[in-house]
Formats: sequence, structure tokens, C-alpha cells
Amino acid sequence: MSRVWEIMTFTVPAYAATSANEPLAPFTVERRDVGPKDVRIDIKYSGICHSDIHTARSEWGPANYPVVVGHEIAGVVAEVGADVTRHKVGDRVGVGCMVDSCRECENCLAGDEQYCRKGNTGTYNSVTADGGTTQGGYAAGIVVTEDFVLSIPEGVELDVAAPLLCAGITTYSPLRHWNAGPGKKVAVVGLGGLGHMAVKIAHAMGAEVTVLSQSLKKQEDGLKLGADHYFATSDPDTFAQLDSSFDLIVNTVSARIDVTAYLRLLKVDGTMVNVGAPEDPLEVNAFALIGGRRSWAGSNIGGIRETQEMLDFCAEHHLGAEIEVIGADQINEAYERVLASDVRYRFVIDASTFA
Amino acid sequence: MSRVWEIMTFTVPAYAATSANEPLAPFTVERRDVGPKDVRIDIKYSGICHSDIHTARSEWGPANYPVVVGHEIAGVVAEVGADVTRHKVGDRVGVGCMVDSCRECENCLAGDEQYCRKGNTGTYNSVTADGGTTQGGYAAGIVVTEDFVLSIPEGVELDVAAPLLCAGITTYSPLRHWNAGPGKKVAVVGLGGLGHMAVKIAHAMGAEVTVLSQSLKKQEDGLKLGADHYFATSDPDTFAQLDSSFDLIVNTVSARIDVTAYLRLLKVDGTMVNVGAPEDPLEVNAFALIGGRRSWAGSNIGGIRETQEMLDFCAEHHLGAEIEVIGADQINEAYERVLASDVRYRFVIDASTFA
Repeated sequence: MSRVWEIMTFTVPAYAATSANEPLAPFTVERRDVGPKDVRIDIKYSGICHSDIHTARSEWGPANYPVVVGHEIAGVVAEVGADVTRHKVGDRVGVGCMVDSCRECENCLAGDEQYCRKGNTGTYNSVTADGGTTQGGYAAGIVVTEDFVLSIPEGVELDVAAPLLCAGITTYSPLRHWNAGPGKKVAVVGLGGLGHMAVKIAHAMGAEVTVLSQSLKKQEDGLKLGADHYFATSDPDTFAQLDSSFDLIVNTVSARIDVTAYLRLLKVDGTMVNVGAPEDPLEVNAFALIGGRRSWAGSNIGGIRETQEMLDFCAEHHLGAEIEVIGADQINEAYERVLASDVRYRFVIDASTFA
Repeated sequence: MSRVWEIMTFTVPAYAATSANEPLAPFTVERRDVGPKDVRIDIKYSGICHSDIHTARSEWGPANYPVVVGHEIAGVVAEVGADVTRHKVGDRVGVGCMVDSCRECENCLAGDEQYCRKGNTGTYNSVTADGGTTQGGYAAGIVVTEDFVLSIPEGVELDVAAPLLCAGITTYSPLRHWNAGPGKKVAVVGLGGLGHMAVKIAHAMGAEVTVLSQSLKKQEDGLKLGADHYFATSDPDTFAQLDSSFDLIVNTVSARIDVTAYLRLLKVDGTMVNVGAPEDPLEVNAFALIGGRRSWAGSNIGGIRETQEMLDFCAEHHLGAEIEVIGADQINEAYERVLASDVRYRFVIDASTFA
């Protein structure tokens, strides 16, 4: 994949998936030389998102192997291009799920690059204008155009900041968009990587937060994270008791759930927002919507401007992810533990171990 | 069903369904004597709504036979109770889908009686506090508590006003709630009784209106009613061409449709609102929501205050339903024509023919 006739490249140590069935393994990834608007980042920490696993295993369509996944990247600026104005060497920075977009469609112009009409350029496994494939954050370094590099403010350590770049913005954006705040009753479905951030952020926004989890196993954690109430969805009484209770439900669960039953937990004008979903259609009885002018919505990460706003908000409220730091050689084991929901609440790879 | 030990009653000629399988037939319906807060209305016109057919035929659960259906009622006040302040004899008035509600839950207090937590009292086939069953508008007269009686302003004739009480408010409410107006692109799915009112009202609100109908059969009508564009949904190109186009889609079709395909016609932050739906769940791919922060919502008629607002809006814009006036003896034939979509666009019964 050398394209030296076009762009000069350099290499950094990384971990890559080489097929859908093989474990991730050490790999050397090429990065483009720093262009005029580029920022070269020494990656310090890289979070493990469930999406990484889906991509590495070709569960979301065939991946372009070898693929370096990872889109929860925190590090330090090592070099900037001649025209870079927003970042300087030594800055603490982050990169999330996108590294570029068309920048000219109505959605990009509105700051919603995540909904770019031409499709944004994902941080990994995305085809670029020159026909290459993007390679993500399970690596010692990365080069990204400055407009898609976020500043990580003082007050958030880089290790707990990394998961904010996906899990943080994915939950912050709908909470902000649907006005979570004082006087609002917000439910969070699922207390995993996304859910635990949703609880922290909704609580910091001033909302009354309820966790709806399959069991009460993580109840103590949930309350410590900021939840006011905690209910087990395996208990049918939960649905009777919470009928028409919430202004907003953020559903972080990608598994098939009974959407209709959750919609009935919304007050009049309430909204349930899915930030994940199974690939297959879900069955929904529209009368649950009609009976209370309720809405079922979806939300995909957040725009770059909003991601910066989220990082600033987290710094102001001293919020970071709850993490377990691992070395690169533990990635495959971590994947199995993610699939078994055996992580509280996000694995973060110490990028020095890619060396 | 005489309850003379509780309330004095009188009778009026009507048409009733006596079983799920029999045609509607002449019937004499009891009405309560006018109480202090009651209004007695001489019904002039009564619209035929598809809901009437569902109820008459026990398609929405077993009906309480004999049942007089009809909830698009326009008439003239014939008598008022001692404490009535909002209406006087001779006033032109209407009654819609509700004749009472608890009046004390948060939704009633907010003017959303249609979402009354205890369930509003439907105009027909609804159990009342005293254990009786409400009987609706296919009759020469009705008695209704004044707070659920609407004023029909000058500028709208009673015959074309009748359907506004259900078809009008059912479409006005979501159009208003989701801000149809200048600069907004609104699609109306289905050009029937509800759809034709949605087109008229959305156009009067200043929106750019597109009809999405199965075929182009009613295209000329649609454009006359106020639509700017008209597309056949049987043509797959329609969905490609209109991808991500609309701010709001009002779905008036109760049949099973491919909700996912329609959701993809919404811009970022767009909403599709169902005002009808099949009883069975619909399959929806949540990625159509997630991919554009889209919402799928539902809406049920409108509150009393908003119904009055709708009537005033229609008077101001000289809007009424497109109707075909029939006699009571044509009701059964009209039902068959409604089921065959053979009506442009609402049947209205001349209530003088109940005599």
C-alpha cells in the first residue's frame, strides 16, 4: 500500500486485524507525512469501543484488511504543518470517530459533519479521496487534518479522556439536543461504556437520572456515577411502575429490546433516542407513539464543534470515563471481556505498549 | 338502558350499529337532560371517519352494541344549562372525538386532554362515570358538557366544518407542533380524508407541500388542494429522488408501509409523524433514525384549546373539508366506498335525514 509517488509516508507500530477470524496482532502502519494543515499526534491512550470489534471481525460488512481500528484517541501534538493554527506541538489533543468530511454540504456547514451528505471519513476502515483506507488509533501515532483534532482541556487526564471521543460525545450529543437538564427526568438504558458516560453527563447537566439495566448487579456503581434511581428491566413491575415517567430515554443497548415497552415509559412529548441498534429492523407498535405524542429518535456521535463543547463540559465538571488500562498484548482478551460485558466501564490501551 | 332514577333523558333519532356484521340501521338514542354545564346541540352534519367503521365492526375490540358512532359533529346550540357561559342558543358549534376528560392530570391541565392519564371520554363507545356508554354523532342531537363544545367561526360552513373536528385537528396538531410553515418542506403520505386536510392546512401555514401517494391518480386534486409536488410511492425512483428532503412527514396511512424507507426521506433532525397506524407492530430499522438524528413520532387528534385554534385558523384561511353530503340511508353504502378509497374526500351525513 505504499503510495510514495503521491505522498511521503512514515511508519508507526500498531496492532491490526488481518482477517475476521484471527486475533489482532502487532503491525506496522503507514502514516502520511504531515501536510500543511496536518497535525501529527503521539498517541498516549486509545479506548476500545464495541464498534472496533464489529469492524475488526467484518460484522458491519467486509473490512479492508489489514485494519487498525480505534477511534477514541488521546495524545500529544508532536508536529504541525505550516498552515496549522489551531494546535501546536505539546498540546493535549484527541481524535474521535471522524477524520474528515466533505465540508461543503448543508450538514457539514451546520457543524453536523457526522451526517455529511457524502459520508464523513471514518477514523478507520474508511476509503479516502486518494483511494487509501484510513487506519485508526491502536497505534503509537496518527496524522489528522487539524479541523478534526480536538483540544483536551486541563482537568481531564488523557487516559480517562480517550473514551470521551466516542462514548462521551455519543451520549452528550442527544442529552444536549433533547435538553437534558434541571427538571427533566432522563432514563439511561444499559450501563456499559456508553451508558456510564450518559449517567455521568446527564447528572452533570442537572437532570434526574434513572438507570434501566437488565439486573441490579451494577446498582451500586450506577448510583455512585450519578444516577438517582436504578431499576431492573428483567422485573416486569419496572415497566408498570415507570409508565409515562420520562422526558428522555437514551438507549445505549444495541441488542434487540422491546422498543414499544420502553416508549410507553415516556411522558407526553417524550423522546427515546437510540445511539445504537441491531442491524435488523425492530418491531414497534406505533400506538405507543400516538398515545402520547412520543418520539423514537436516533443519534450518531456528534459534530466536531459539539465534541469540543463536550470535552470542555467534561473538564468543567471533572468528568472522565471509568477505565481499565491495558497493554497492547491484552487487546484480544479485552475484546472477549467486552463481549461478555465484563468491563467497568471502558478498556483503554496504553499506547506506549505498541512500541 | 333507562337510568331515570339518576338522570332524566330524552330521545333523538339516530343510526346505530347493532352488531359487528349487520349494517347500521335507524335507532332511537337516549340523551341526558341538559345539566347546569351542558349544551344541547341540534346536529346539522356528521362526518364519516374511518374510525367509525372500525368501531361499528368491533375491529378495535368489542363495541358496546347498540353503538351510535360519529365524532365529526357540527350543529347549532338548542339549549344551554344554567351555568353555561361559553355558548348560547343559536351558536354554531362542533364536537369532536372527546366529550370529557379527568381535567386534573398533568396532561389535561396542559390542555392535552387527548392524552388524559385516566383516558378521555370518547364521543362514542366510551364508558362514562355513571357506567353508561357514550353515543356519538350519527343522530339528530347530542348533549355535551360545554368545555368540550367548540365554536365554529363565521367563514366555515357547517357541512365542511364537520370533518375538521377529527380530520382537521388530527392533521393540524402535528403540523403546528412540528412547526410546519414558511421554509419548511412537508410531505403528506396518503391523500384521503386526513391527507387532503393535511395538504390544505400545511399549505395555508406556508410550508412547501409534497404529496406521497400510491399512484398519480389524484395528482390534479392534490395540486388544487395546495400541494406543490406530487409523487407516486409505487415508483421506486421516488424514494431515491427524495432522499433526505423533508423536514416533516405526516403519515395519514393506517396500512402497513415501509417506515424505514420513508424515514430516509427526512433531512437531519426531520420528523415523521404517524396519525394512524396498523394495530400490529411495524418493522423499523433504527439506523434510518441514527443516520440523520431523525425522529419517528405519533400524534393523536389535539386538545380542546388547540381544536378551537384550528377552527379559527381554518376560518381565517377559508378552509373546510372537501365533502360529499349523503342521507342517513346511504351510510352503509358510504362505508363500502370509504373502504374502497372511493371518496373525495369525506362523506358528511345531512342530519336532517335522521328524522
